[in-house]
Amino acid sequence: MLTASKVHPKEMREKIRTGEWQGPTAGCSDGYVQANLVVLPRVLAYDFLLFCQRNPKPCPLLEVTDPGDPEPRRAAPGADLRADLPRYRVYREGALEQEVTDLLQVWREDLVAFLLGCSFTFDVALQRAGVPVRHLDEGKNVSMYITNRSCRPAGAFSGPLVVSMRPIPGPLVARSVEVTACFPLAHGAPIHVGEPEALGITDLGRPHFGDAVSIRSGEIPVFWACGVTPQAVAMHAKPEFMITHAPGHMFLTDLRDDELSHSFM
Amino acid sequence: MLTASKVHPKEMREKIRTGEWQGPTAGCSDGYVQANLVVLPRVLAYDFLLFCQRNPKPCPLLEVTDPGDPEPRRAAPGADLRADLPRYRVYREGALEQEVTDLLQVWREDLVAFLLGCSFTFDVALQRAGVPVRHLDEGKNVSMYITNRSCRPAGAFSGPLVVSMRPIPGPLVARSVEVTACFPLAHGAPIHVGEPEALGITDLGRPHFGDAVSIRSGEIPVFWACGVTPQAVAMHAKPEFMITHAPGHMFLTDLRDDELSHSFM
Repeated sequence: MLTASKVHPKEMREKIRTGEWQGPTAGCSDGYVQANLVVLPRVLAYDFLLFCQRNPKPCPLLEVTDPGDPEPRRAAPGADLRADLPRYRVYREGALEQEVTDLLQVWREDLVAFLLGCSFTFDVALQRAGVPVRHLDEGKNVSMYITNRSCRPAGAFSGPLVVSMRPIPGPLVARSVEVTACFPLAHGAPIHVGEPEALGITDLGRPHFGDAVSIRSGEIPVFWACGVTPQAVAMHAKPEFMITHAPGHMFLTDLRDDELSHSFM
Repeated sequence: MLTASKVHPKEMREKIRTGEWQGPTAGCSDGYVQANLVVLPRVLAYDFLLFCQRNPKPCPLLEVTDPGDPEPRRAAPGADLRADLPRYRVYREGALEQEVTDLLQVWREDLVAFLLGCSFTFDVALQRAGVPVRHLDEGKNVSMYITNRSCRPAGAFSGPLVVSMRPIPGPLVARSVEVTACFPLAHGAPIHVGEPEALGITDLGRPHFGDAVSIRSGEIPVFWACGVTPQAVAMHAKPEFMITHAPGHMFLTDLRDDELSHSFM
C-alpha cells in the first residue's frame, strides 16, 4: 500500500490495465482525485445528465464522455475506461449480471460514461485542516443513510438523497463546512448539521450502508450528500444496461485533489 | 425605474405577462437573480446540456425544464416562460425569424428551456464590496470580447469562449476574485487577469459586443467568462428551431442574489 500511494495515477492505471493491480484503490496515488463510474446507454444519458444537473451535491459531475468513446479526455487523457478500473459491475434491467475486470466484451458504441467526484477528496482535506475523520481513524467505511429527502427527479431517474455522516467536535463544525465548501465537485458543504431526525434518520448506530462509527460526547453529526445517491437512483430506474465500478474499485484520474475547487469548473 | 426596482419578481412577471411592462429588465426587482433564456428542441437538448456541463463558467445552468413544460419549478414556481419575459427572439436554421412578446403561438411540446446565470448578480456584489464597476458607473453595457480559446465542444455545439472585461484597480483585483468566486452560478471567478494579448484580444477599446469603457492608469483588465458564449455557440450550430430572450429583456427569477452561492448547487 505504501508503494501504491506514491505511484502516479497514469502508472497505476497501467498496472490495473495489465492486471498487475487488482485490488481496491483506497490509498492509491496520494493527492489525486478518484472517481465513481456510471455507464449508461445514450438513450438514457440525457435523463441521467439532467438528474446530475438538478442534484449537483450528491452527483458532482467531473466528466461525461462522448457516446462510444472510452477516453475521459479531461480527467485522464489517454486512459481507457474499459480497462483502467480494477473491477466493474454489469447490470441488466437493474439486476447485477456479472463482476468483471474489464469491459472489452460488453462495451457498446452507444455507451456514455459519467465520472463523479467522491468524498475521498474532502476527507483528506479535512484531515489536513485538523478536523478528525472518524471512519478513517477507526479503519472503517463511512456511515451512510437513506434520508426522507427526495432528489429532484429527471425523466426516468428519481429517488431519495443518501448522505454520509461524520461526527465533528462542536468547535470544528464551522471549519468542516469551510473546508468542504471549497470542493463542490466532491459533494461540497454539508447539507445538514445535527438533528438526524430531521432527515428521517432514527438510529445513527445503524447506517444503511457502510459502518457505524463511534460518536463522542460533544460531537455533532454532520451530513454530506453522498455519491451512493446516483448509483442507487440509476439502479432504481432498472435501465436495460448499466455498468458501474465495483465498490472501492474506483477510477484514478490525473486531477490533483486541489484542482477540484471552483476554478476547475 | 425606481419603482420597478422595489417590485417583487412575481409581481413584475405579472406586469410583463399582461403587457403592462414591455421594456428591458435592468434595474427591476433589486436583489433578485435575472436569467438568460435559451430554448431548444429536445433532440438538441442533450448536446446543449453537455456543452453547459463541459463549460460551466460561461454556461452556469440555473435550471433546465422538462420537455414541453414552460414552468421553471425551481427558479420561479408558477411562472410561465412563454409569457413572463418582455421580449423574445425566435430563430430558424440559425437565422432570426421574428421578435415577439410571448411564445404562445410558437411553443411546442418538444421544447426544453435552459435558464443561465448572468453577471448582473456579481456586478451588484462587486459594488457592495467596494470594487468599482466601470460600465455601470459610465452607464454603458459591459465590454465583451471573442477570445482565441475554444470551449470544450459537445455534439453539435462548439465555438470560442466570449469574455466580459472590467478594469479593476490593482489593489482591488484580489477582492474582485474573492467576491465573484462566491457566485459560480454567475460565471464565478475570473478566467484571466491582465495581458489581453494572451486571450487574442488586440484592442480593448474595440470590444466585439457591448461598449468600450475607460481604463485608468493603475487599472488591470480582468476577464470573466461571459453568458454571450452559450447564445453564440447555439446560434453557430444553426439549430432547426431556437428561442432566446431579446438582449436586455431577461427572465426575473424568485432567487435572491445571495442564493447563487455554492449551497444553491
